[in-house]
Amino acid sequence: MNWEDITFEEVKAAAEKLSGIAHRTPVQTCRTLGESTDSAIFMKCENLQRVGAFKFRGAYNALCRLSREERRHGVLTHSSGNHAQAIALAGRILDIPIRVVMPNDAPIVKRRATEEYGARVIEYDPSKSTREEVSEQIRQKTGATLIPPYDHPHIIAGQGTAALELIEESGPLDLLLVPCGGGGLLSGTAVAAKAMAPGCRVVGVEPEMADDATRSFRTGKLHTVSNPPTIADGTRTPSLGKLTFPLVLRYVDDMVTVSEEAIVEAVRFLYDRARLVVEPSGALGVAALLSNAIKPGAKTGIILSGGNIDRETMIGILSRPGSQYGEE
Amino acid sequence: MNWEDITFEEVKAAAEKLSGIAHRTPVQTCRTLGESTDSAIFMKCENLQRVGAFKFRGAYNALCRLSREERRHGVLTHSSGNHAQAIALAGRILDIPIRVVMPNDAPIVKRRATEEYGARVIEYDPSKSTREEVSEQIRQKTGATLIPPYDHPHIIAGQGTAALELIEESGPLDLLLVPCGGGGLLSGTAVAAKAMAPGCRVVGVEPEMADDATRSFRTGKLHTVSNPPTIADGTRTPSLGKLTFPLVLRYVDDMVTVSEEAIVEAVRFLYDRARLVVEPSGALGVAALLSNAIKPGAKTGIILSGGNIDRETMIGILSRPGSQYGEE
Repeated sequence: MNWEDITFEEVKAAAEKLSGIAHRTPVQTCRTLGESTDSAIFMKCENLQRVGAFKFRGAYNALCRLSREERRHGVLTHSSGNHAQAIALAGRILDIPIRVVMPNDAPIVKRRATEEYGARVIEYDPSKSTREEVSEQIRQKTGATLIPPYDHPHIIAGQGTAALELIEESGPLDLLLVPCGGGGLLSGTAVAAKAMAPGCRVVGVEPEMADDATRSFRTGKLHTVSNPPTIADGTRTPSLGKLTFPLVLRYVDDMVTVSEEAIVEAVRFLYDRARLVVEPSGALGVAALLSNAIKPGAKTGIILSGGNIDRETMIGILSRPGSQYGEE
Repeated sequence: MNWEDITFEEVKAAAEKLSGIAHRTPVQTCRTLGESTDSAIFMKCENLQRVGAFKFRGAYNALCRLSREERRHGVLTHSSGNHAQAIALAGRILDIPIRVVMPNDAPIVKRRATEEYGARVIEYDPSKSTREEVSEQIRQKTGATLIPPYDHPHIIAGQGTAALELIEESGPLDLLLVPCGGGGLLSGTAVAAKAMAPGCRVVGVEPEMADDATRSFRTGKLHTVSNPPTIADGTRTPSLGKLTFPLVLRYVDDMVTVSEEAIVEAVRFLYDRARLVVEPSGALGVAALLSNAIKPGAKTGIILSGGNIDRETMIGILSRPGSQYGEE
């Protein structure tokens, strides 16, 4: 499928597949943020999605399209983050064997979480081979289908269903803020939002430290970053993909970046004022508003993309000084 | 109004008053808890209500019924918890002056939070007088209406709207677990649930350390506790009230108690597995299930009553050992 074929029809088809399987996550308003920005705020709580992130939408949408023959050979992915767990859970639901390639220095908790969802983890030594080499070997041996984390039509269309649900609930938005890593969520969101609310500005948000997509967007030429040390670990992907880059260029209105300080502040704000557990990557949209990186619309949507923040990080953020009282 | 007059009609009237003012909070399912209890779980997230607790429902419902004359003289309450903040916010929305009587040793953060909502805090020295004496003096001087935290028909009916919304969304439940302090939430919930789903068992949950309502329920005689040192600070009320006690006897099916350990475990579970920030009192229903204090129904509802947990307490709970990975 070419990028031009990833249309709102595909997003709607994904929504049908996901109906009754993915959670229809709540949309929370936030008066504190609304008053300080003079905007009505609608936050789509994908931190409350299955596996704690929007990733389940794309993963399930991709896996449920596989033929019986493909399912029998299983699915393969290389990720140690939310995508691996999303694929693992989708595989369990659809009874598809899942293999996940992980470096042997991946955190034990991530490995265990993936295994708890029933996937088989295959370790490799990153000093001796790349994950692509290892994946290719397994693919040749097993005939498994490789499902990448973002550069895949059904992944992109699946991620777009979060925005579809958000706009169904909020009505037309003037602005929609979306975290950007590999661009799967951002491009799927933009496809959906532009079809449902043509006047809605769709803006991607990246950490300053991982601003490859922003630079790519501005120059029209694909930029990359190499393992940027941002706290927003969901955005450490090296670059946009072959599908997501043209989709971002076509449908996204702007890209902005935020500091590490603004990201941490946004996680704390969401905990304190909205009682939401949101991981740093998931808080990028709120960070953009709080740090005035973007002018709010009259009606602003924000996708809170995930909630998988480890306890130590959350404890560190909660231990910072500041007001601790809640949203009215 | 007698307790017999607090009917489902009153709850429905409260729901109309609250429409568009209180948040219609999300109902979250929880597969981890569902699988371990062999039950479909529906959690009503009042931790995401305005002021972070169900208390806003009753407070607004009570205040919006006051006459123009009564509003002019203002409203008075004595509480340093969620009720004070709920009354303060409802007063701000309805343009009613609010006075809150607090001991001069109340935590500064609670005082500040109440003032931030626009209420006037009146301090007293608890070694010299009681809050009732101070409140009565103010009432005589100002003509203000005293709105108590739970023993009031409009408070009880307002709290019942959370269960109304829950059952509208979940359909008939077999079991509904409700935290119990002074019994406002429990009795309002029971009135609503018994009208909407007569087969639903309504069970109140208390900390072992503050089991006055359980003892009152079992004996039919009002028992009291004196400032029990439970972590579930919303249940430190001395006893059920003149209205809530007969309502609990009439409509509630059972009462159970849970240990402090089970409460802390439930707060941690909700954070880890459902990414919800829930205060100890709000987690009592989950604590009852996790500690096997109650046999789950095929369809079990749980009211997560509030999310106002201070950072130090949350940090302490998150710092405990245990699995930290999320809900599927």
